Amino acid sequence: MNYRQINMERTKKDLQKALSSPDFKVINAIESIELLDDSLNVLSERLREWYNLYFPEASAVVKSHASFAKIITAGDFKDKLKELFPKRSGGEMSGKDLHAIKVLAKSISEGYATKEELEEYLQKLLKNYCSNLFAVGGAAVSAKLISSVGSLERLAEVPSSTIQLLGAEKALFRHLKTGAKPPKYGIILHHNLLQNTPQRLRGKAARVLAGKLSIAAKRDFFGGDYMGDELAKDLEERIRRLRK
Amino acid sequence: MNYRQINMERTKKDLQKALSSPDFKVINAIESIELLDDSLNVLSERLREWYNLYFPEASAVVKSHASFAKIITAGDFKDKLKELFPKRSGGEMSGKDLHAIKVLAKSISEGYATKEELEEYLQKLLKNYCSNLFAVGGAAVSAKLISSVGSLERLAEVPSSTIQLLGAEKALFRHLKTGAKPPKYGIILHHNLLQNTPQRLRGKAARVLAGKLSIAAKRDFFGGDYMGDELAKDLEERIRRLRK
Repeated sequence: MNYRQINMERTKKDLQKALSSPDFKVINAIESIELLDDSLNVLSERLREWYNLYFPEASAVVKSHASFAKIITAGDFKDKLKELFPKRSGGEMSGKDLHAIKVLAKSISEGYATKEELEEYLQKLLKNYCSNLFAVGGAAVSAKLISSVGSLERLAEVPSSTIQLLGAEKALFRHLKTGAKPPKYGIILHHNLLQNTPQRLRGKAARVLAGKLSIAAKRDFFGGDYMGDELAKDLEERIRRLRK
Repeated sequence: MNYRQINMERTKKDLQKALSSPDFKVINAIESIELLDDSLNVLSERLREWYNLYFPEASAVVKSHASFAKIITAGDFKDKLKELFPKRSGGEMSGKDLHAIKVLAKSISEGYATKEELEEYLQKLLKNYCSNLFAVGGAAVSAKLISSVGSLERLAEVPSSTIQLLGAEKALFRHLKTGAKPPKYGIILHHNLLQNTPQRLRGKAARVLAGKLSIAAKRDFFGGDYMGDELAKDLEERIRRLRK
């Protein structure tokens, strides 16, 4: 082997090692889940509109897209709903028409099952890869943060004020350019604790949450012991105190 | 019953009749198919990117999204491809990682099967409802035209020059406003005959095609005999002559 070949081999191995990184797995999983979710939302809206031609009362009663698709697929909906609404106000449909709607509903229903399976996979992945971050942020927020900066390493390096605003880049640059109000949170707004915090306290809660996430990411990347439960408990405590 | 009740009953019946119209069925079917296709495209891109981490050679070999998803689902790909590429250049993946990719692939594969079923349904629907239009335009173009104006009735009423430009409204108004080049075709560009016509003749071919589609729609709506085969043959003949 000459130098060129040795170099080629080495580069190939480095590349393979980089490709094997859990970062890429996390990023692909979360992006697939998000795309799937978007598609299922749009298709569900269409399914409802289509079924509205036949039985407009149904869509109003079942709020969740996943349940709606499941119920239409199962086909036992008509009997149950007939008790509630003895007179359907929709138009006439042949068996073939209804079957076509069912085909779409089944596909959507399977899509939701796929999404659940991928979410389980992502959770296991995160539990192994960054247990502290996962304990504090949950699956969706942790994965989106990693996906946003590209790797856990990078997430462990950026300051917590950056973590707080990841995903709010547009609003941040609008603020810097035009002097509009600065954003207070980005991706982390999806976190349960923030969702349940009243609007006026969200900015403060976001800062606290970002701080804990930052500590967790650092500990995961630089290899400290597991202290996710402590971090999560402390976080909850601090946000509860904020609300008082 | 007083007048109000009688009126309510009558309105309800009129509404039910309107909802039973094949127009709505065609529109819902084609819009579902289009949405499904968009979603499957995006998800397939993601699937490829994800699998690229493991086996980047695969994506380059299989061009069709549907086949790619099917092959990954079946899982017999590895052996076949190993003959072609004895050395995979991707990273390492555990069985769980590969399983997650398979779950997504399976979902996409099922999505393509759903799309096919809906396309068959749409074809039958159109054959019954507007056999002449279907014979000349094919399923996708006919359904998109009906969806674009809202009903077969409306399609039978508009001039053929309008049919030619349906779906190109944006370009048309840009032309009227700024004097940019006027569009020569809209939805009908998806027609096979137009796809196979060289660019410089497409404008003329589009006019011929729109004329035939207009005749077909009028005949379907106002109830003449079936002459779809004649129309289609005549159309092909005229476009072949154009090309000479």
